Amino acid sequence: MGHSNSQIFGQPKIRWLINKTTEDWINLANANPMEILLDHAHCERKAAGVALQLMFRYVGEPGLSEVLSPLAREELEHFERVLSILHARGKKLKKLASPPYGAILAKNISKDEPRRMLDSFLVAGLIEARSHERMALLSIHSPDIELRNLYADLLKSEARHFGVYWKLANERFDQNIITSRLKELAKVESNALVEMHHEPRMHS
Amino acid sequence: MGHSNSQIFGQPKIRWLINKTTEDWINLANANPMEILLDHAHCERKAAGVALQLMFRYVGEPGLSEVLSPLAREELEHFERVLSILHARGKKLKKLASPPYGAILAKNISKDEPRRMLDSFLVAGLIEARSHERMALLSIHSPDIELRNLYADLLKSEARHFGVYWKLANERFDQNIITSRLKELAKVESNALVEMHHEPRMHS
Repeated sequence: MGHSNSQIFGQPKIRWLINKTTEDWINLANANPMEILLDHAHCERKAAGVALQLMFRYVGEPGLSEVLSPLAREELEHFERVLSILHARGKKLKKLASPPYGAILAKNISKDEPRRMLDSFLVAGLIEARSHERMALLSIHSPDIELRNLYADLLKSEARHFGVYWKLANERFDQNIITSRLKELAKVESNALVEMHHEPRMHS
Repeated sequence: MGHSNSQIFGQPKIRWLINKTTEDWINLANANPMEILLDHAHCERKAAGVALQLMFRYVGEPGLSEVLSPLAREELEHFERVLSILHARGKKLKKLASPPYGAILAKNISKDEPRRMLDSFLVAGLIEARSHERMALLSIHSPDIELRNLYADLLKSEARHFGVYWKLANERFDQNIITSRLKELAKVESNALVEMHHEPRMHS
């Protein structure tokens, strides 16, 4: 599906992201609120998985588990909250085909340390930033008041998550290296969304 | 290291476990409280990992994420609590060689569904049961009052965890199949502890 270049007036600029989300995405999301909600449940689950995976891979890294464990708990709490709304609306958690977004980003993570660690933080941060941007949009533009409130609530803590990954990167890597690598990965991230996936997803 | 067959008088019988923990283990644990504490942090982290792994593998399984997500959060909360005591005592989270216990149990999980699911629940439950038994022992026999209190506190919620896995199995499998498979796996579990690992661990 193509998309227009229109962007939403007054939409807050989210640090890290090169392209803002278009109105086309919001319209697609608002036309398919339950599919977006189900996908959002999976996003929260996967975000917890990413944090835990990093805790496992870098188990002896000082100061890492201390921030990623509470982050993973928060993602799981959100997952459960979204799940309970799905249940209340008669829906179940079921598999949902993922958009190519996550795989494209994962493919761009370096295989060699210490670049792999930096890339992992930046990619996780970029995904959090995009989720945050889109939840903010849904919290304003969803026609469903319960969903507006849900996304607004989740936002409050989600807002901190990309800050956590940013800080993890900053404490360990040179500012110039971070900035130039972030620019590259942010381009990958935005490009992954240009050709909008035909199915409504948080990251389509 | 060999071990005597002596068992602790009055020690509560933990459902599922064939052999009770011996005094030798308690003595080893009490002689190395910080190593046990560090290992315990890793156990909590790994228990969260197991729950999340099952949520990922059986993503569309009704009623599974609903109970494993809160369980994973609780394990992470415990992980953070143990971590803070380690920090307060000037210790850091660092890698620790695992005893063979987990790998022996994992090797005995069937590769074919639906047996793989049943085995996964039973093995996770057995590990929780053993953790619970040993934390109960430490909550009584540790000479360190802060550690006694810690283990006693963690116990309160850990006690539920093997019940969660037991219920997951019961809701999905025939009682006879569960009972006979549990008997086999409980034997593997107890045997994995007979030849005590030379290093002090929660599951050595």
